[in-house]
Amino acid sequence: MGALVGELIDKEDGFERVATLSSADVGELDEGLAPADLVIDFSAPEALAHVAAYVRRTGAALVSGTTGLDAAQMGEVRALGEVARVVHASNFSLGVAVLRRLVAEAARALSGFDVEIVETHHNQKVDAPSGTAKALLDAVDPQGLDAVAYGREGVVGPRPAHEVGMHSLRGGTVAGTHTVCFFGTDEEVEFTHRATSRTIFAAGAVAAARALLAREAGLYTFEDLMLD
Amino acid sequence: MGALVGELIDKEDGFERVATLSSADVGELDEGLAPADLVIDFSAPEALAHVAAYVRRTGAALVSGTTGLDAAQMGEVRALGEVARVVHASNFSLGVAVLRRLVAEAARALSGFDVEIVETHHNQKVDAPSGTAKALLDAVDPQGLDAVAYGREGVVGPRPAHEVGMHSLRGGTVAGTHTVCFFGTDEEVEFTHRATSRTIFAAGAVAAARALLAREAGLYTFEDLMLD
Amino acid sequence: MGALVGELIDKEDGFERVATLSSADVGELDEGLAPADLVIDFSAPEALAHVAAYVRRTGAALVSGTTGLDAAQMGEVRALGEVARVVHASNFSLGVAVLRRLVAEAARALSGFDVEIVETHHNQKVDAPSGTAKALLDAVDPQGLDAVAYGREGVVGPRPAHEVGMHSLRGGTVAGTHTVCFFGTDEEVEFTHRATSRTIFAAGAVAAARALLAREAGLYTFEDLMLD
Amino acid sequence: MGALVGELIDKEDGFERVATLSSADVGELDEGLAPADLVIDFSAPEALAHVAAYVRRTGAALVSGTTGLDAAQMGEVRALGEVARVVHASNFSLGVAVLRRLVAEAARALSGFDVEIVETHHNQKVDAPSGTAKALLDAVDPQGLDAVAYGREGVVGPRPAHEVGMHSLRGGTVAGTHTVCFFGTDEEVEFTHRATSRTIFAAGAVAAARALLAREAGLYTFEDLMLD
Repeated sequence: MGALVGELIDKEDGFERVATLSSADVGELDEGLAPADLVIDFSAPEALAHVAAYVRRTGAALVSGTTGLDAAQMGEVRALGEVARVVHASNFSLGVAVLRRLVAEAARALSGFDVEIVETHHNQKVDAPSGTAKALLDAVDPQGLDAVAYGREGVVGPRPAHEVGMHSLRGGTVAGTHTVCFFGTDEEVEFTHRATSRTIFAAGAVAAARALLAREAGLYTFEDLMLD
Repeated sequence: MGALVGELIDKEDGFERVATLSSADVGELDEGLAPADLVIDFSAPEALAHVAAYVRRTGAALVSGTTGLDAAQMGEVRALGEVARVVHASNFSLGVAVLRRLVAEAARALSGFDVEIVETHHNQKVDAPSGTAKALLDAVDPQGLDAVAYGREGVVGPRPAHEVGMHSLRGGTVAGTHTVCFFGTDEEVEFTHRATSRTIFAAGAVAAARALLAREAGLYTFEDLMLD
Repeated sequence: MGALVGELIDKEDGFERVATLSSADVGELDEGLAPADLVIDFSAPEALAHVAAYVRRTGAALVSGTTGLDAAQMGEVRALGEVARVVHASNFSLGVAVLRRLVAEAARALSGFDVEIVETHHNQKVDAPSGTAKALLDAVDPQGLDAVAYGREGVVGPRPAHEVGMHSLRGGTVAGTHTVCFFGTDEEVEFTHRATSRTIFAAGAVAAARALLAREAGLYTFEDLMLD
Repeated sequence: MGALVGELIDKEDGFERVATLSSADVGELDEGLAPADLVIDFSAPEALAHVAAYVRRTGAALVSGTTGLDAAQMGEVRALGEVARVVHASNFSLGVAVLRRLVAEAARALSGFDVEIVETHHNQKVDAPSGTAKALLDAVDPQGLDAVAYGREGVVGPRPAHEVGMHSLRGGTVAGTHTVCFFGTDEEVEFTHRATSRTIFAAGAVAAARALLAREAGLYTFEDLMLD
């Protein structure tokens, strides 16, 4: 993803690439790398401490697409938002942002319906469910009250009302498909987002960067920047 | 649909069936039929004049699911709303109401995306597109600015940006499926509603009747009554 | 299902209902119930011994839609097929029969593709996956060589090539939807069957009964009777 | 497509690119271009006469993916098959080939079902329906007995039994999606192929070229070469 973002940045008016760091050389951030206006970070949780120190030292804005942050690391991201412009998102697709918002509304309006989430990714993806699927679960059940069924096998009994089913398909080269289904009595409503290339995430990160640079210090979601 | 609604009404607490008229005997409305609190009308445009006169005479609330009204008839419905409680809808499904609202939001948020609408109904349906599909088109393009393509055949050239495709599938016993697709660059968002029996429309009409009886005079949409 | 079959049988030319037994009174089969030409059994595994004894005693043909039979009970069904006309199926829908056959062909033609199966049923269904989903798995992998993933959660690593994903959605009043997906490099093929009422299974059982009565003794699949 | 095929050919063992002609310089085929073992033609109908003359002169095998050929040009392709190895296809995807074959089988097994075909392509495609959709129509109705409805609008009456609906969606950057639906009483069967890049067609053309070179003179379909 870092490489894709870099390619796009090089083509965009108004952006200039100052440095490109891999996880191996992220330590350079600590060693006096010249101040930049913006850091875009799609690396790994381990890099966050270096990135955060750089942002604090230079006041750069931060676009973070790193997934798998633990609670302490999320706390660090929130703290950064008190002193710098920060956007953190698991998915920088405009379509997914719209999906998340509308799924949250649907969950409120269709409160008695049963919800099941299905996501499909290529066969090399190592984790499940996807970060976007987790974000959709959060949109459906913002208070985390529901149990999550990551699979069903055997005599499991009738479906509990406050359960969300989460299903991770893996196969081929699928860039990412997410579906949220609401099942009611004799009717169902289904929302699907389908990405056909990972370029959309890089393009969204660059669009978010542009929007972020026009804001004040604060922690933003991608939706904050793109939908409001 | 009238028969289904009648069956449900008979089972609901707080409702009592006073009269059931077919299109053949709708004239009875003119001839001194005793006042009722509520008229539910799923008949044909021709019946509207009789229904409206009855509502004016008795002050009954009106739930109208009649489709195919012309501009003058729609004007009559609006005028009725000035003196009585009226809800008029082409579709009384809660899922469809949610779909309409969310599709309208999506159309605003995804303003550069191409929109195509697909609807499927049983093979005995005589008209196309469905009333619900027309309502979804209206949700996508409330000002009616876009051209509608009801089919494409031959060398039609590249798709114009301000066009909405409308596709009516017919087959088997399908109760009603509606999909609205938004296509962008390398991503798409799709919303689907699937009804598996017509009972949902009758149940929604009864729920709307109940909500309408608690309101003041006015012309309401089903969404007004159910989602706000 | 037994009640639905009974209703259909009563309407069909050439069939006459001799007796209708619930699981409570299946013992009557042992106690000299008069011979019939045909037994239709959609009950529970426990009834099989009684049904089998009756078939052996009377030579009746047997349409069995009982699911959840263990290996010994399946052996009894096979043994019955040596002396009587027997069809045993987990699903009596013509559409599902076609799906099974075509999915088996697709699995051979698309041998390097990743296969995932998704099934959806109403929220009162107590077991997972459905009998039909198991039959589709068998169609995809007739020799049972593949591992089955009934869910994926956490860091599970890249998808093994010889794995089939099996996903059971539960919600609302869905009568039964089954999808088999084949994912390749930059392309996918998907097969879906959707039932909107359980009547199709009863209708298929009656159609199979009619076809079975025209055959010789033997154990048949529903496909044998309907597709050849 | 020609450029994509060229790129793949350059990477494949056992192939060497001798010449690459655009439609502007296809005349070079007439002017003594050295004999090659194979011509891959994804150009326009106008080029066929030049290509055919070259094949006749040199005995080269021909992989033709040119669409929009008229009856006389199709006759020329058939005639070429009498003297050379020729494969002509509107679509060189293995998944589509499987879909076509299975859809043809389904149409025979589900003979009373209503068939509707839906295809989606990017918004720059100028013609409708796609060549693949036409091939699927041919698979469903090989004798061309059915009427085709390319759209439905207004009061069109109940669906005739011997009609196939054909629906062309256009939007975004969709590489190509095709769905064939069979609708029966309370059940439906649906087959979908989704391509996420045009590379699959180039890869299939190269695979077909390899298979074709091992055959005798004759006119082959892509299915003949890949599925038998």
